[in-house]
Amino acid sequence: MIIVLKPGISKQQETAVLREIRKRGYRPHVMRGVARTVIGAIGDELTHRSLETLVSAFPRAVESVMPVQKRYTLVSRDAHPAGSTIKVRGRTIGSRQFHVMAGPCSVENEKQLLKTAEAVKAAGATFLRGGAFKPRTSPYDFQGLGEKGLKLLAKARQETGLPVITELLSEAHTEMVAEYTDIIQIGARNAQNFQLLIAAAKTGRPVLLKRGLSMKIEEWLLAGEYVLANENCNLLFCERGIRTFETYTRNTLDLSAIPIIKKESHCPIIVDPSQGAGRADLVSAMCKGAAAMGADGLLIEVHPNPSEAWSDGAQQVSLDVFKRLMEELRPFVQAAGREMANG
Amino acid sequence: MIIVLKPGISKQQETAVLREIRKRGYRPHVMRGVARTVIGAIGDELTHRSLETLVSAFPRAVESVMPVQKRYTLVSRDAHPAGSTIKVRGRTIGSRQFHVMAGPCSVENEKQLLKTAEAVKAAGATFLRGGAFKPRTSPYDFQGLGEKGLKLLAKARQETGLPVITELLSEAHTEMVAEYTDIIQIGARNAQNFQLLIAAAKTGRPVLLKRGLSMKIEEWLLAGEYVLANENCNLLFCERGIRTFETYTRNTLDLSAIPIIKKESHCPIIVDPSQGAGRADLVSAMCKGAAAMGADGLLIEVHPNPSEAWSDGAQQVSLDVFKRLMEELRPFVQAAGREMANG
Amino acid sequence: MIIVLKPGISKQQETAVLREIRKRGYRPHVMRGVARTVIGAIGDELTHRSLETLVSAFPRAVESVMPVQKRYTLVSRDAHPAGSTIKVRGRTIGSRQFHVMAGPCSVENEKQLLKTAEAVKAAGATFLRGGAFKPRTSPYDFQGLGEKGLKLLAKARQETGLPVITELLSEAHTEMVAEYTDIIQIGARNAQNFQLLIAAAKTGRPVLLKRGLSMKIEEWLLAGEYVLANENCNLLFCERGIRTFETYTRNTLDLSAIPIIKKESHCPIIVDPSQGAGRADLVSAMCKGAAAMGADGLLIEVHPNPSEAWSDGAQQVSLDVFKRLMEELRPFVQAAGREMANG
Amino acid sequence: MIIVLKPGISKQQETAVLREIRKRGYRPHVMRGVARTVIGAIGDELTHRSLETLVSAFPRAVESVMPVQKRYTLVSRDAHPAGSTIKVRGRTIGSRQFHVMAGPCSVENEKQLLKTAEAVKAAGATFLRGGAFKPRTSPYDFQGLGEKGLKLLAKARQETGLPVITELLSEAHTEMVAEYTDIIQIGARNAQNFQLLIAAAKTGRPVLLKRGLSMKIEEWLLAGEYVLANENCNLLFCERGIRTFETYTRNTLDLSAIPIIKKESHCPIIVDPSQGAGRADLVSAMCKGAAAMGADGLLIEVHPNPSEAWSDGAQQVSLDVFKRLMEELRPFVQAAGREMANG
Repeated sequence: MIIVLKPGISKQQETAVLREIRKRGYRPHVMRGVARTVIGAIGDELTHRSLETLVSAFPRAVESVMPVQKRYTLVSRDAHPAGSTIKVRGRTIGSRQFHVMAGPCSVENEKQLLKTAEAVKAAGATFLRGGAFKPRTSPYDFQGLGEKGLKLLAKARQETGLPVITELLSEAHTEMVAEYTDIIQIGARNAQNFQLLIAAAKTGRPVLLKRGLSMKIEEWLLAGEYVLANENCNLLFCERGIRTFETYTRNTLDLSAIPIIKKESHCPIIVDPSQGAGRADLVSAMCKGAAAMGADGLLIEVHPNPSEAWSDGAQQVSLDVFKRLMEELRPFVQAAGREMANG
Repeated sequence: MIIVLKPGISKQQETAVLREIRKRGYRPHVMRGVARTVIGAIGDELTHRSLETLVSAFPRAVESVMPVQKRYTLVSRDAHPAGSTIKVRGRTIGSRQFHVMAGPCSVENEKQLLKTAEAVKAAGATFLRGGAFKPRTSPYDFQGLGEKGLKLLAKARQETGLPVITELLSEAHTEMVAEYTDIIQIGARNAQNFQLLIAAAKTGRPVLLKRGLSMKIEEWLLAGEYVLANENCNLLFCERGIRTFETYTRNTLDLSAIPIIKKESHCPIIVDPSQGAGRADLVSAMCKGAAAMGADGLLIEVHPNPSEAWSDGAQQVSLDVFKRLMEELRPFVQAAGREMANG
Repeated sequence: MIIVLKPGISKQQETAVLREIRKRGYRPHVMRGVARTVIGAIGDELTHRSLETLVSAFPRAVESVMPVQKRYTLVSRDAHPAGSTIKVRGRTIGSRQFHVMAGPCSVENEKQLLKTAEAVKAAGATFLRGGAFKPRTSPYDFQGLGEKGLKLLAKARQETGLPVITELLSEAHTEMVAEYTDIIQIGARNAQNFQLLIAAAKTGRPVLLKRGLSMKIEEWLLAGEYVLANENCNLLFCERGIRTFETYTRNTLDLSAIPIIKKESHCPIIVDPSQGAGRADLVSAMCKGAAAMGADGLLIEVHPNPSEAWSDGAQQVSLDVFKRLMEELRPFVQAAGREMANG
Repeated sequence: MIIVLKPGISKQQETAVLREIRKRGYRPHVMRGVARTVIGAIGDELTHRSLETLVSAFPRAVESVMPVQKRYTLVSRDAHPAGSTIKVRGRTIGSRQFHVMAGPCSVENEKQLLKTAEAVKAAGATFLRGGAFKPRTSPYDFQGLGEKGLKLLAKARQETGLPVITELLSEAHTEMVAEYTDIIQIGARNAQNFQLLIAAAKTGRPVLLKRGLSMKIEEWLLAGEYVLANENCNLLFCERGIRTFETYTRNTLDLSAIPIIKKESHCPIIVDPSQGAGRADLVSAMCKGAAAMGADGLLIEVHPNPSEAWSDGAQQVSLDVFKRLMEELRPFVQAAGREMANG
């Protein structure tokens, strides 16, 4: 910790601050600068009590306190410099293979789901996504088919061989969801619902953690730390757009998160351009950008008839559009030194 | 719903759009303007399927779709123009009485809590706040005393007569928390954890719903709608700062939320200046602003020794500062046509 | 400057960093902590070349560089702890007197302006505001009457005795605007148009500097520093709302800027609730909040017939509403230890 | 315009609103819906007075007013569906050719500039960028060499044949800058300095308009409209990052702006990853993403020795890094159906 003192404080005030720093288990180291005196407090910031309260404890003497250690360790790239991979039913995410997870926003019925699953598989997707439990802004919107939806996902997996990813949004459903799904998705609105993260981690299933709407990179990494700290090392980050002042798009997809997560963490990163833009007409360009910038895969909403979708129709692409998108995507995946994964 | 057509589309395309609108149960009404043709779709937007997907269904013909109805009804002021009041152990929130809820960020031990409870009561607070379960950004930070903390809150209520407010952060704790607390607080990070909102609502206890870090007013009202739609009419909104680009403060307290909530909803609104600023030195000014702008009360973090606090020490005020703050606050509460509630 | 080194770097790399720090004129001071080595670089950050580029110069050795000095000096409260006051035609801003500056968004014609000027004076305003040059988002919107508008403002001053404040938006108009106005307003869109700030400063007229739409407090203080560094000590800050994700209001009025500016700077702060909310129905509540939180005055848009206004009609209040607002405001100004200034 | 009336208003109130709409030159068209009555006002929104003030004129009767026309016309893709190209000294921007504009943040001296110009040319850049006038947050930072810098840019052009792009930040410098430069750059802080935009447009030089820090797409298009409306059709948009809550990067580069501008406008779009990230280590990934998403070119800060740079050293890449970046970029440009332009 670095403690910056205010200019012109008395010797007595300085001594009191030093005493407090020692009391909390740190060794103070004083540097007298031109305009400010700065104290380096030597000790482990992760195990000792924080010194940040010195600002309020000594309002007239302490100007600011700055941490120098990073607060996350298990998700940090330092912990696993080579990068980690996640194995799911014979597929490996985080490898040279580029994975596309595709399917409807909501599971609606058997016909809709199977038709979509077969089409996305034929086009090259290697995972099937689909929402059985839906967090909806309004209590009057469709909330998902629940367990019936999970059963349809399992059936679609049986028919197509595609592993399944679906969202968990209640601790009460943890066991049930884990029984049916191959990857548990934690949605943006629950990204700091730490109890849910712990419950998901404990199932042992890989966890895909979406970035919260206004989550800083550091907070996202720390939320991921909750998963690894609960003994589940199969974590995937998923960028899905952040909330900004711009209203043309529903969210602002922050593609810079890809190289940043690659730099700071060993965990794979997936990009969701459907939520990211909230507009089907921007999905294709965003997929190409994500592949070019080094993402490990994509999560795309696809629907046989977007205009009839029970949720988020405006951002789902049709089966035809998805097929064309997959073809157009290939050269960008190759330019990035990867190859499209094979089902 | 208003559907704006693109300029220069064919008669055939227009007919297809009109047919689809009728198919979804609306009656279309065409207006030909100077630069655009606009269709008014007459029908109840809350019960019919949305027309918003027309944009993706007819990408060459439909430019935009705009709703004209509000999506919330039970929390709307229209539902209860006089404004609703919440009764808790003889106190009435939302009345002419201005209520201050005060106490430590985290319950740490009996001595700390009782000392604080007695001091805030003496200074004029009418509710005791204290966290027993704490949602922390890092898994390595103090997570609260849990049920032991709840028991201490109950003890403090017995000794001081102050009703208690504490946070619920897991569905699994719902019954336990509801047993001890008088008001259930839903924190900013769980403001769109709809399953938790439903669980809290069903306890029958009043629910104080904090605004999410990047929650629009409409989303906040809709999250509140989840509480009322689950047959709990005792809802309080709590503004606690939103996330913006500014880094001087931890959050940007949006005091304009007070007159807006008063205009749009019948539910009381409380302001939390401690989270709002994240800095103890700004709390006093923000309390005055909130009272002046018509808030029904305040939620303030107070600690006997902020620099020793186990969480968020930088934003908690000391007992002395709190006492002075309460004195300074009184003329602003009176200028707003209210009076400080009596314990 | 504090330089944080990466963990596990070689002695050789450390030596290279130390050599570079010395080369730039700082004296390095090494502290070896538990997880990191930290270097304090002692020297004046304002006169020496910045060390921030060490991060890119030594990407494998340097993790981060943190300044410890504040970058502003002349606007800092340290430079004038008692607070400065601005004298304009017998009125003193920044004193115990609370000043309301009111008038139309745009000067439209003599009748509109004089009628407004007389009404706001009668209601207690002590300055007349009015736009002669208008920065408009669209080139097709009304751009102001130009010099004709300035002449009308001067005439209104003559008739009512109210000093005038108006916006300068082009360096080319500097002399002309300075000739007619008593206070020069720099608008939010030009808040970092440094050439315009310098031109305004050099006229010697007091300068009211609005906060830019996405300006951090530190950047705002530094923009103000441009005025004082050009030998004009009559600077007023004006909070007018920042841009956030919220769309209910046009901007989010950041009232916490009041206590922050009071703490960091000696210059007075004025609040503009009209731009801040963009909605006339919120203006009154925001004026009360601003007064309660310690603002030195208000800048309010008033129009004899808001629905006929040539610009921003939605945020201007009528003469009647303004009169009532001034009456309601008084007790809050008094509760804040001030009094309404007399014309 | 669409006017939404409040529920339950009287016939008399409705008649008054209709009368006002007619008075302003529109033909009202009433639609009675289930929950709301909606009025379509038929007439040209660009030439008639706005109806938006009806909200304040009839606060009890009118709930909201929604425009249906777009406010920009000359920059709109409708005005030039094929897309426009900008010709500069034999190069064509907006064509199949992908252009990289590279050079130092600030022109520092002849040696630094020439060395950089030659190196970026050799690596494949087709334009030379360099700042002669610098807008700096602090008045104490280096403000650029001024005309001396412009002369050095002209000299570098002579030696390398690379056309030059440099920033104009004061109306007073317009003629001087236009004399030396091939493209005039308008910086983010001046993106809504409309007088400067008009001055730049009138020189006849192509204008590269950076997006303001908190500028919505629509505002950006309208600022561009100022250029075209002043009879200069050579406009380039430049995305350079927007301000968000994230602090890991200096700005958040909004790459979705590329497909959006392509859709809404006929003008080319360039991406500036140096300002966008503020970190040299992210520049390469962002260049690839921009090329993949359809940008017409890049604007990259390059310095022979970034750690010695007089401004923004942390975001400038070295000559070596730039060379490697250009090689890595090529396959992405090709995958996007383009080719690297030849000097």
